[in-house]
Amino acid sequence: MFTLGIDYGTNSVRALVVRCRDGAEFGSAVVNYPSGQQGVLLDPKDHNLARQFPGDYLFGLERSVRGALAAAAKRRGFKASAIVGIGVDTTGSSPIPVDAANRPLALDPKWRKNPHAQCWLWKDHTSVAEAARITVLAAAHRPHFLAKCGNTYSSEWFWSKLWHCLNVAPDVFAAAHSWVELADWIPSVLAGASSPAEVVRGVCCAGHKALYADDWGGLPDKEFLALLDPKLAALRDRLYQKAHDASVPAGRLAPAWAKKLGLPAGIPIAIGEMDVHYGAVGCGVAEGVLVKVIGTSTCDCGVVSAAKTVPDIPGICGIVKGSILPGCYGLEAGQSAVGDIFKWWVEVVCRGDASLHARLTAEVAAQKPGASGLLALDWNNGNRTVLVDPLLTGLLLGQTLYTTPAEIYRALIEATAFGARAILERIREYGVPVQRIVCAGGIAEKNPLLMQIYADITGCTMQVSGSSQACALGSAVAASVVAGVHRDFPTAQKKMTRVRPRSYRPLAANRKIYDRLYVLYRQVHDAFGGVNKSADLSRVMKDLLALKQSQRA
Amino acid sequence: MFTLGIDYGTNSVRALVVRCRDGAEFGSAVVNYPSGQQGVLLDPKDHNLARQFPGDYLFGLERSVRGALAAAAKRRGFKASAIVGIGVDTTGSSPIPVDAANRPLALDPKWRKNPHAQCWLWKDHTSVAEAARITVLAAAHRPHFLAKCGNTYSSEWFWSKLWHCLNVAPDVFAAAHSWVELADWIPSVLAGASSPAEVVRGVCCAGHKALYADDWGGLPDKEFLALLDPKLAALRDRLYQKAHDASVPAGRLAPAWAKKLGLPAGIPIAIGEMDVHYGAVGCGVAEGVLVKVIGTSTCDCGVVSAAKTVPDIPGICGIVKGSILPGCYGLEAGQSAVGDIFKWWVEVVCRGDASLHARLTAEVAAQKPGASGLLALDWNNGNRTVLVDPLLTGLLLGQTLYTTPAEIYRALIEATAFGARAILERIREYGVPVQRIVCAGGIAEKNPLLMQIYADITGCTMQVSGSSQACALGSAVAASVVAGVHRDFPTAQKKMTRVRPRSYRPLAANRKIYDRLYVLYRQVHDAFGGVNKSADLSRVMKDLLALKQSQRA
Repeated sequence: MFTLGIDYGTNSVRALVVRCRDGAEFGSAVVNYPSGQQGVLLDPKDHNLARQFPGDYLFGLERSVRGALAAAAKRRGFKASAIVGIGVDTTGSSPIPVDAANRPLALDPKWRKNPHAQCWLWKDHTSVAEAARITVLAAAHRPHFLAKCGNTYSSEWFWSKLWHCLNVAPDVFAAAHSWVELADWIPSVLAGASSPAEVVRGVCCAGHKALYADDWGGLPDKEFLALLDPKLAALRDRLYQKAHDASVPAGRLAPAWAKKLGLPAGIPIAIGEMDVHYGAVGCGVAEGVLVKVIGTSTCDCGVVSAAKTVPDIPGICGIVKGSILPGCYGLEAGQSAVGDIFKWWVEVVCRGDASLHARLTAEVAAQKPGASGLLALDWNNGNRTVLVDPLLTGLLLGQTLYTTPAEIYRALIEATAFGARAILERIREYGVPVQRIVCAGGIAEKNPLLMQIYADITGCTMQVSGSSQACALGSAVAASVVAGVHRDFPTAQKKMTRVRPRSYRPLAANRKIYDRLYVLYRQVHDAFGGVNKSADLSRVMKDLLALKQSQRA
Repeated sequence: MFTLGIDYGTNSVRALVVRCRDGAEFGSAVVNYPSGQQGVLLDPKDHNLARQFPGDYLFGLERSVRGALAAAAKRRGFKASAIVGIGVDTTGSSPIPVDAANRPLALDPKWRKNPHAQCWLWKDHTSVAEAARITVLAAAHRPHFLAKCGNTYSSEWFWSKLWHCLNVAPDVFAAAHSWVELADWIPSVLAGASSPAEVVRGVCCAGHKALYADDWGGLPDKEFLALLDPKLAALRDRLYQKAHDASVPAGRLAPAWAKKLGLPAGIPIAIGEMDVHYGAVGCGVAEGVLVKVIGTSTCDCGVVSAAKTVPDIPGICGIVKGSILPGCYGLEAGQSAVGDIFKWWVEVVCRGDASLHARLTAEVAAQKPGASGLLALDWNNGNRTVLVDPLLTGLLLGQTLYTTPAEIYRALIEATAFGARAILERIREYGVPVQRIVCAGGIAEKNPLLMQIYADITGCTMQVSGSSQACALGSAVAASVVAGVHRDFPTAQKKMTRVRPRSYRPLAANRKIYDRLYVLYRQVHDAFGGVNKSADLSRVMKDLLALKQSQRA
């Protein structure tokens, strides 16, 4: 028996055929979104804007699934009729305005070119002002809302985006019958839902991005939403009353789509979750295991048994019951840019290509910690955790007239690792146990140097997921559970997921240097991040120079 | 009648033949120093080290003078016998350890390869610890020493370098009979001085770099020098008792050198001054005129009549009677790296060449002030004025995932202009009048965009020297005075120097933006520079983003 995991990333969609018995990956296919720049619709006048054409999702769905089936068909022992379930993960919060028939407005020629009628991609930051206002209003009127999302509501999230749409494109807002998260919309399409009311909503997006909690009756109450705008309060009735964890199916594969994809009709579809959440499942997330999906950005996921009490953790984006695994609280944190920063450095600033990435990486490998005298902040795309502030930017200091591109490259890698340490320290401080870190994503697999730096800076052994497609694999795991192949997630994870033999242990000598650098990182971090409003930074450059000199001696 | 100006820069030496009647430049020649990297001896293990092989100076002397004469000979009305005087300017403080015959130690095969036996180039920063100690000792025991040099003695200066040599290479120190500034050494060579005692020392280097002042009896007293090291006190007797302004000649051209160079023997040689000081003369420096020589670094020179009282100005490297013009106080300030920063950015980081300089400049021209959201500090080589701290480094903030190399290039230009504004504000604050700014150096001539940014940021009209060889021209002006062709410097300057017709006026709209950016620059400057030890930087990134958004709208 096999299941199919479908993973909608920022630039492409991947389908993966997995054998339920042992997690063997039989075939996969990736399709790039054809629109915009690498699949993202941008606005040169506003770097905060990032949208996606929903038609690209359907285009990619058919091609990726057909491609994965064709690849799997080349191996002995596979046939498409042996597929017993489908799981889907996507980016989020990526809400789509839809009409009364659950059709994205952007598929209507009338709205086709309107940027506000598209999917509002997770990394869209246009609604900074609305997010700030929601934070203020929630602090004043519904403090319990905020406590569960790190005390700051983000411009990357559901209500900020909807409200911003209402403010800048009231025509689009008025035309939208409802809004559906991409993670819910794809399963609903596969299940043939013919109205937004039929869409089965997952608690993963709802809880982490839309302030949904069973404790307070689902989505924010109308009275609160009316403080934002009465039109948002009115919309609440056309959204949803209940969101579900992955123990409930999102539906069964509709005949029309079964035919299009070449799959058996009627097989169950798992609840959609955000990519990194199913990615965490695919990495074997469990209590004590922190999963880091390191890609263009980084997402950290952890779980704590729902039988325990989980405190609110300042700056942690979300703590949601059932968001990753049924029966557990799911914790999510993250860094807004990681691989994106390296890509920017090498390709935009140094105007290089993959070969320059490789050359710089080789140079970085020959450098000692602290020997460059550089220190960077990893905020080129704002700070998601622990400051939850999109209005922050990158910083590099310590450069001389001899500083090389490779030294800066290393400083940027270190900056993301310091950011990772800040997250780790914060969740541990609030009692979340972390015994192991399992990483997934292209960077974790392909960059042993970065992994070693992460180990040295965090002081934790870093393991790497056994699958290169942890998100799609996690979706396939969820599909195996919803299809009844495995009795629960832990059983399915034990059978279907693993880590690689090679892990990265912290080196004591490097840790010592990085502990000193981390102190300086925190000084600059806290000063520019507004944590410390009377900062003494007079020693930062001097301490870096002293460390540089001692590391070069 | 003609004079010859010889200008020893950081990477090359230039000779220039000038007609005394009107300043017409009849011929010039440049010779690159053959040793090291672009003429500078470096140490890959210690970025602070910068030395120069004295043999390169002699090599360049003969070739550049012969070249300039050959070039001038192509023009009607010139013959070498019409040259009536020589002037020399050099970098400084660039002290050379010499033996009892005034021969640099490095010309002795025994010391040829010893880095400490070379000329200690102005930008050598190895003696940071010694400079800091001299500052402490002077503050405690001779506060009047410090008051004249901005309250901080620099690692770039004479005593720091000698003391560091004593500490790290006592054999070299012991072998040196005396130390001679390059600006004094070249004239002494031309004049055939056969011992250090015969070298006529200029007050320019002595006063600005070696704590010399007639007011306190010349060089620092032995008692003070003994606090540093008794060996430095002992050296004082083998240095000099008196240093002179440019009203006194450094000697007359010795027959051997006259023959080597093809010049009339016995013509007077002007007192050597530092390059930018004679550069200021070549730019027409006078009361109310600030001269900026913008090159790899920037030097600012101004003069105030010696009849007035000039206050001590914190952070201004030096105020020395007679250092630029006889009868005036000479003021010197500067920025440790300007063109060097742009070169580093384009050539080291962006790995480009001259064509990339041009392409980035064209892109920069299309950008609006504030539109990048970037802010930089111009400290890649430390800060000379107004912080007088070599242990500072570069900083760049505001970068996103879309920041381009050209935007950073512009931010670096702006950073140097903000640094220039900090100097201007400081000297004005202490009562030094600045009505006009005249700029010289390759950057001032070739980069109208930079000049406009400087005008917009400083709020001053920027003029450009009429000569591309302002330093060599100033040396030729000094030669014309010492030769008696003109009766004094103002007369000679009026005849021989001019500014270009095109000047750069501040644009009101840009000034407004830059005034806002300058506030942010000062916040970051003061925080990392140790001026403000309880800094609130929480708004810096946000204010930059807001400005960016409004400038892009």
